[in-house]
Amino acid sequence: MKTVHTIADLRSAVRQWRRADDSVALIPTMGALHDGHLSLVTLGRVLCDRTVATIFVNPAQFGENEDLDAYPSNLTRDTELLTASGADLLFAPAPAEIYPDGFSTTISVGGVSGGLCGAARPGHFDGVATVVTKLLLQSLPDKAIFGEKDYQQLQVIRRLAADLDIPVEIIDGPTVREADGLALSSRNAYLSEAERRIAPVLYRTLNEAVRDIAGSPADVERICRDARRSLIEAGFAAVDYFELRDAETLAPMAAFDRPARLFAAAHLGKARLIDNLAL
Amino acid sequence: MKTVHTIADLRSAVRQWRRADDSVALIPTMGALHDGHLSLVTLGRVLCDRTVATIFVNPAQFGENEDLDAYPSNLTRDTELLTASGADLLFAPAPAEIYPDGFSTTISVGGVSGGLCGAARPGHFDGVATVVTKLLLQSLPDKAIFGEKDYQQLQVIRRLAADLDIPVEIIDGPTVREADGLALSSRNAYLSEAERRIAPVLYRTLNEAVRDIAGSPADVERICRDARRSLIEAGFAAVDYFELRDAETLAPMAAFDRPARLFAAAHLGKARLIDNLAL
Repeated sequence: MKTVHTIADLRSAVRQWRRADDSVALIPTMGALHDGHLSLVTLGRVLCDRTVATIFVNPAQFGENEDLDAYPSNLTRDTELLTASGADLLFAPAPAEIYPDGFSTTISVGGVSGGLCGAARPGHFDGVATVVTKLLLQSLPDKAIFGEKDYQQLQVIRRLAADLDIPVEIIDGPTVREADGLALSSRNAYLSEAERRIAPVLYRTLNEAVRDIAGSPADVERICRDARRSLIEAGFAAVDYFELRDAETLAPMAAFDRPARLFAAAHLGKARLIDNLAL
Repeated sequence: MKTVHTIADLRSAVRQWRRADDSVALIPTMGALHDGHLSLVTLGRVLCDRTVATIFVNPAQFGENEDLDAYPSNLTRDTELLTASGADLLFAPAPAEIYPDGFSTTISVGGVSGGLCGAARPGHFDGVATVVTKLLLQSLPDKAIFGEKDYQQLQVIRRLAADLDIPVEIIDGPTVREADGLALSSRNAYLSEAERRIAPVLYRTLNEAVRDIAGSPADVERICRDARRSLIEAGFAAVDYFELRDAETLAPMAAFDRPARLFAAAHLGKARLIDNLAL
């Protein structure tokens, strides 16, 4: 696997593959890779001839009081993992390559970015939308692959790719979990041993709520309220949201009457954990 | 010249040219074509093998009280003019092709879109930036050509193309003028005969101010104030702005000490006329 740091080198590599009629999959990441990321690389290799992973911790999607400076980073280990997973190219740009002096363009996606993490993290999805658009236009892949763990992000990206006519297919990869159900996340590294034992309660509570909503589709509000209380009782410090939403538009749902997704975000120690399940 | 109305047909035509290794120039317009537009088509033919003109009156760049409904339109005549000018393809989409149900993405360019028409027409440049990005990504041309008459728009587009890494070269075409100096504009059609006789004062006043500023570089504020008064005395109903700005960043300039551009916008009858000159 080759590593490049500039857009010019990225484009030059992709151009060579295009000449050979190879299809290209892009897997954007912020590094601190785990098996969730690597499963997306594997999916890319199944779907396309060539697979490009990117590692860029995007300052624009972190709020002022968030964990930009603390965000875990280990390029050497990430490079080894990507090499072992069979990626063809790693694009790891410096911040100035992505945001040169004078940069002043912002992409905002309405609708799907409202509420959930959009409410808890103002500006977050503008930062995601802008950097993902740039990464897509830098490489112009056939397919770009994003994990379902960040389901709202996935819908924001689907929406912007369609709205801006970016010639790419957005693919979702299923959430990878630990044996006890905890969704893999780079932020799990923030958890103490005791917190790590509490963390899987998030997934368990989501599962119980999915079962309860399926059995009592009009009781969404009560079930979600009970779930929030359960999380606090289990040791979570605060619950940002525990909500049922339309699976595509992410519009709030008071009753389960069409394809839906149940979303949760809760704070545990220094970590903010998110997860979601389909109904 | 072929006319297509869907993104799929546009892409199919461009794909065929790409197979033959033909380069492609894009000339986005809102129709109501005049020699200014046609000079951009001619420039496209000089620079590239194939030339695509687009006609789309973009609702998103008109304010609530602006002239969207009155905007002149004559697709038959425009088609004849483009055919005669040697364009290879006309893309004339319906609004629903550009903004289908659920559309919810906005591109905002900071800096260059501040002040001037950005102040006089709130939201205008968001509308321009979003639709131009879409047109560029629908066709992925080698070069896209815009007139210098809309100089602020040109700088907004340069900025967004660079910031979003759109693989296109933005080319500017010089302003085409009537014999008396009036810049060609589809909105000149709004002028009565009497107003048409007053209209060239805008260009004349810009020229005089350019000469005065060159001779007295510290007196920018006074010279612009005098120019605004001259326009009102000549019969213009209101002056939106008459300002010297940095030629690239469009930052306001109190003194002429680096490459600059002088901008004017003024109302005459139903028309809002704009023009600008380099210093």
